[in-house]
Amino acid sequence: MTKTMKAVLFEDELRFVRDRPMPRPAAGEALVRVIVAGICNTDIEILKGYMGFRGIIGHEFVGLVEECAEERLLGRRVVGEINAGCGRCDYCLKGLERHCPARSALGILGRDGAMAEYLTLPLRNLHVVPDGVADEEAVFAEPLAAAFEISEQVHVVPSSRVLVMGDGKLGLLAAMALGLACADVTVLGKHGDKLEIAARRNLKTAMPGALAMERAYDVVVEATGTAGGLQTALGLVRPRGTVVLKSTVAGATEMNLSPIVIDEITVVGSRCGPFAPALRALAGRLVDVRPLVTGTFPFERAREAFERARRKGSLKVLLDFR
Amino acid sequence: MTKTMKAVLFEDELRFVRDRPMPRPAAGEALVRVIVAGICNTDIEILKGYMGFRGIIGHEFVGLVEECAEERLLGRRVVGEINAGCGRCDYCLKGLERHCPARSALGILGRDGAMAEYLTLPLRNLHVVPDGVADEEAVFAEPLAAAFEISEQVHVVPSSRVLVMGDGKLGLLAAMALGLACADVTVLGKHGDKLEIAARRNLKTAMPGALAMERAYDVVVEATGTAGGLQTALGLVRPRGTVVLKSTVAGATEMNLSPIVIDEITVVGSRCGPFAPALRALAGRLVDVRPLVTGTFPFERAREAFERARRKGSLKVLLDFR
Repeated sequence: MTKTMKAVLFEDELRFVRDRPMPRPAAGEALVRVIVAGICNTDIEILKGYMGFRGIIGHEFVGLVEECAEERLLGRRVVGEINAGCGRCDYCLKGLERHCPARSALGILGRDGAMAEYLTLPLRNLHVVPDGVADEEAVFAEPLAAAFEISEQVHVVPSSRVLVMGDGKLGLLAAMALGLACADVTVLGKHGDKLEIAARRNLKTAMPGALAMERAYDVVVEATGTAGGLQTALGLVRPRGTVVLKSTVAGATEMNLSPIVIDEITVVGSRCGPFAPALRALAGRLVDVRPLVTGTFPFERAREAFERARRKGSLKVLLDFR
Repeated sequence: MTKTMKAVLFEDELRFVRDRPMPRPAAGEALVRVIVAGICNTDIEILKGYMGFRGIIGHEFVGLVEECAEERLLGRRVVGEINAGCGRCDYCLKGLERHCPARSALGILGRDGAMAEYLTLPLRNLHVVPDGVADEEAVFAEPLAAAFEISEQVHVVPSSRVLVMGDGKLGLLAAMALGLACADVTVLGKHGDKLEIAARRNLKTAMPGALAMERAYDVVVEATGTAGGLQTALGLVRPRGTVVLKSTVAGATEMNLSPIVIDEITVVGSRCGPFAPALRALAGRLVDVRPLVTGTFPFERAREAFERARRKGSLKVLLDFR
């Protein structure tokens, strides 16, 4: 008899089941027992139809390796990069599995995700979590890696003047990560309590009305999650500056593109990033993600967890599979 | 009595006058007698209201220096960079007058332009034209500089695979300039005769139906002059590749931005460029701009010249002020 497990599914609607067959790792994959999984805005977008995904959702997790061919990983606590590439194309050979045209992505594209008691991932996707990092911190490795991706793509220098638009999870993580690379980072947001998290990390904060709409920033990170964010960013970045586009918004947006040409602005789309710098920052307490946890819910209260994650003012909501 | 001159004006409508007062050079400026001026698509956009400019239009020219404080320039044949900066701000001090917030721009912004018998420009904007370069070639220095701006901003390497969208003047100049930096340049266009100009320079050419819509190009230059070009470019550039946006289109455009984020594409706006590489390429016959001249018209037939410039299939139309 096939063993079954608890899982959060999206199949036309959000479902919480207990009879999902346990996954079996393919060659080169590990079976991971999930400890904690995080709810990301991308999961909420998937529930609206983003990526057309059907299956177990979730891509942020920390877990224990139960089965795999590499003894050194057995029983270890791990996090995992979410994109599984073909291993043979130009992108994979350059270490850019996350752009492999044939990739699957945990809980997003062609691969069951992390909101379940078990998941499988290729061994090369796994990173052992340093001992000093709590489960509730380790689960931030994936979104924090996405924040470090900005510095992978854009040369942020110590004297760069940076504006992060948006005080949600990704905005705050991006600001914390960029605060390691340069001295002048401002978070632009609408929520006093969220901006307070940034302020406690010695980042500058501003609410929209209080920010001079001058084209003064070398780098503007658009992490508002809204369609109109890019146009606003083009009015805040300096000529020849860079806008980093983090928000994925489904559907079409009305835009005036001429400022990009006239001011020779660079717009860089930015998605998943490298895990090693994220784990190192967590282990060294270079960033503090703990204030970003809004609540942790057991699987039995998963529906409540999703309601909480969707609620205005919420940051990271975690599902506990222990 | 103030001397007057012939000039092409835009003041609510296009006007051809003979009684425009001659300009007087300010301190640090030269008085230049125009030999030939070119009609650019930007001029056509200005006639539709772009930049809200009123005055003498035109920013592409070659002329003779008649008055200036530097003896070495008197009587010399020159072309001129079109942006005049304040000379004191950060951009000007970095040699980026073309991004000075207080700049004027010849025939575009706060400064009378080149379609007249005389113009004035700061001495530092002028470049002496090498003897072997004909007037009808030298007048391409400005748009060819805009083509070289692409390599100023984006690291095009010898093995880069480049697609230039658009077989108009700027598309063809961009393709010729990029053909010096890398071996694999394709011009995508709809006009057999224009593509033939590219083919004669050993550039690849393709018509829309014949091009595989694969995401295969490292760099895609959007020079179609249309609002929808960027969206098409996003479907042709490879993941992590670069789209260079050259088209300035007035007004808003409907766009789906998510490919930028998912494929981590860099979109770089590109405007005016450096004159020295353009003049060097003309002098060394590294590019051949002569096939791009559709016709040369005296001032007396300037209205006809504009009609010709607007006509489908036209490339560069020149106004002769000799």
